Amino acid sequence: MSYIAIDLGGSHAACALVDGSTIIAKQNFEISDNKSLRGLLPRVEDSVRDLLHQSNDHCNGIAFSFCGIVDAVQGRIIQTNGRYYDAPLMDLREWATSRFALPLRIENDARTALLGEWVAGAARGFDDVVMIVLGSGVGGAAMIGGRLLRGKHGQAGCLLGHFSCELAGRLCSCGNVGCVEAEASSSVIDGICRQHPQYEGSALVDLQHVRFKDVFAYADAGDECARSIRERSLRVWAAAAVSWIHAYDPEVVVFGGGVMSAAEDILPAITEYVDRHAWTPWGKVTLRNAALGNEASLFAGPALFNGHP
Amino acid sequence: MSYIAIDLGGSHAACALVDGSTIIAKQNFEISDNKSLRGLLPRVEDSVRDLLHQSNDHCNGIAFSFCGIVDAVQGRIIQTNGRYYDAPLMDLREWATSRFALPLRIENDARTALLGEWVAGAARGFDDVVMIVLGSGVGGAAMIGGRLLRGKHGQAGCLLGHFSCELAGRLCSCGNVGCVEAEASSSVIDGICRQHPQYEGSALVDLQHVRFKDVFAYADAGDECARSIRERSLRVWAAAAVSWIHAYDPEVVVFGGGVMSAAEDILPAITEYVDRHAWTPWGKVTLRNAALGNEASLFAGPALFNGHP
Repeated sequence: MSYIAIDLGGSHAACALVDGSTIIAKQNFEISDNKSLRGLLPRVEDSVRDLLHQSNDHCNGIAFSFCGIVDAVQGRIIQTNGRYYDAPLMDLREWATSRFALPLRIENDARTALLGEWVAGAARGFDDVVMIVLGSGVGGAAMIGGRLLRGKHGQAGCLLGHFSCELAGRLCSCGNVGCVEAEASSSVIDGICRQHPQYEGSALVDLQHVRFKDVFAYADAGDECARSIRERSLRVWAAAAVSWIHAYDPEVVVFGGGVMSAAEDILPAITEYVDRHAWTPWGKVTLRNAALGNEASLFAGPALFNGHP
Repeated sequence: MSYIAIDLGGSHAACALVDGSTIIAKQNFEISDNKSLRGLLPRVEDSVRDLLHQSNDHCNGIAFSFCGIVDAVQGRIIQTNGRYYDAPLMDLREWATSRFALPLRIENDARTALLGEWVAGAARGFDDVVMIVLGSGVGGAAMIGGRLLRGKHGQAGCLLGHFSCELAGRLCSCGNVGCVEAEASSSVIDGICRQHPQYEGSALVDLQHVRFKDVFAYADAGDECARSIRERSLRVWAAAAVSWIHAYDPEVVVFGGGVMSAAEDILPAITEYVDRHAWTPWGKVTLRNAALGNEASLFAGPALFNGHP
C-alpha cells in the first residue's frame, strides 16, 4: 500500500510518502511555534500536496503520529501536554477528507513507533512487544497478541516513563514521585548532575548543559561523578525494564530514542540486569535496539490501515 | 447459571455450588500437603460430588481457580511456584469430563478474584479494572475493556506485586529487587520489623512473629517503630498503585487480601496519594475495598463460561 505518513512532535515534523515499507520521499521541518495545531496545518498541507504530486500510485490514506494522548478509535487527540492547545477541538478526519479526499488514522507517536518497528524493524516477527523511547522524556507503548494496548482513556502502555521506581525519588513533571522519566531522562540529566555530591570535583562542571552523551563519554574517561550517574541511570532503566516485562509479558522489548544512540553499552547493561532479575519462567525476553531510529513512526501505516490492531 | 466453583490455594481449598451470584453450598478444607495435585484431587472430587447431589438445577460446568500461572485458552496450569509439581502435566478438562461429564474453565486465582468482583462485587459496572490482592504475597490482575489481560505466557497483569518500586530495595523471592511484595507484604513484614533501627526499643519486640495487624495496632497506640513501618508500607502500596494505574489505565482499582482486613486506614491513605500523584487527566480513578473477601473467586463462573473475557 502507498500512504502519506505525518509524524508531528513538539519541535519537529516529518511528512513522507511511503510505499509498503519504503520511504519514497520525505520532508522534515522544524516547528518554532507549537501552540496551535490549526496554525501549523497549512505548512503540513503544503508538504502533503508536494508528496502526493510525487506519487504514481493510488494513495490509501494519511497515517498521523501525534505527540500526545490520542483516541485512535474516535480519531481524535485527547491530550497535548501544553502544546497544540486547539488539537482536541479539531476533527482531523474531516480535515483529511476535505483537503485530500483521503481517510486518516491517528495514533500516539510512541504507539506508531512500536507499530513501525513491528511492521519493518526490530519487532518484526513478534506479536508481544514493549517499545521504550528514551529521550527528553521516557515514552513507550505495549502490544499484546498483535494488538496495541490502548485502555479506557488512551493511556494504557503509554506511561511507561511514569512507573514509580524510587519511593523517595524526584518529583516528576507529571506530578508523580520517582518516575523513570524523573530519575533518568534527557530533560533531567543536567539537574541530576548538578545535584550529585561529586559534581564540583568532576569535569562535567565545565559543561554549560550536561547531556547523556557527555555522561557516557566522561564515564568512559574515568570521571567518578559521570560513572556514578551512568550506573544509576542504567539501574533506573533496567529496574523499569523488569517492571515493564512484568506488566505486559512481552517476548521482545525494543529500546529507541535519542539516549540510546548516545551509548553502545546501554542495551548490554539492561539485558544483563533483566536476565538476572525478570521473572519469566518460560524463557528469556529479547531486548533490542530500535532499528528505524526516529523514522519508525513513518512505517506504521500498514498496521494502522489494516485495522491493526 | 449453576456451576461448581473450585478455588485451590496453597494451604486451603474451597468448593462451592453457585447459582448465578448466590453460593448455594460450600465446603472448605485445609491442605496439609500441597506437593501433588493428583494426590489432592480425590478429596476435591468428594466435595464436588457432595455439592452436585445438593443441586436441583442442571450444572453448567466447573470453574477452577488456581494459585499459579494458567493458560486459560488451553485449559492448562503452566507454573506452580514449587507447589503441585505435577499440575502442569495434568489435563484437568479431561478430569472434569471423565469424572463429572462437565466442561471446565481454569484461570489464575487473582484473575478469578477480579472476575468475581466484576460479576458480583466492587468492580461491578466497570470494564477497566485493576485488582490487587495484598496478602502473604502481592498478587493481582488487570482487565481492559471488559477483557482480562493475559499475555503471551499468561503473566500479563498477574505480576503486580513484582513491579520494582525501590532501586536499592530488598531481594524478592521472585529474583527481582525492590518488588512491592519484597517491600510490603505479610511474608516479609516480620523481617522488615526486625531490621528496623527502632525495633529494639519498640513494643513489637515482644511479639514472636509480627503481622500487619500488629503493626497497625501498635502504630495506632503510638509506637514509633510501628508508625514508621506503617507509613513506609502505605507509601509502597500507594506508589505501586500509581504505577498500576499508569500501566493499565483503569477506572477502578479494587484492593483485597488479608492485609486489607487488618486496617481501615489503608484505602484512604492510598487514595489520598493516588489522587495527588496519578496522571489521569480524564478524571479520578475509583479505589475500592474488595466486596467479596476470600470468596471472590467463587463468583467468577458466569464470566469464565460466557467466553468472558
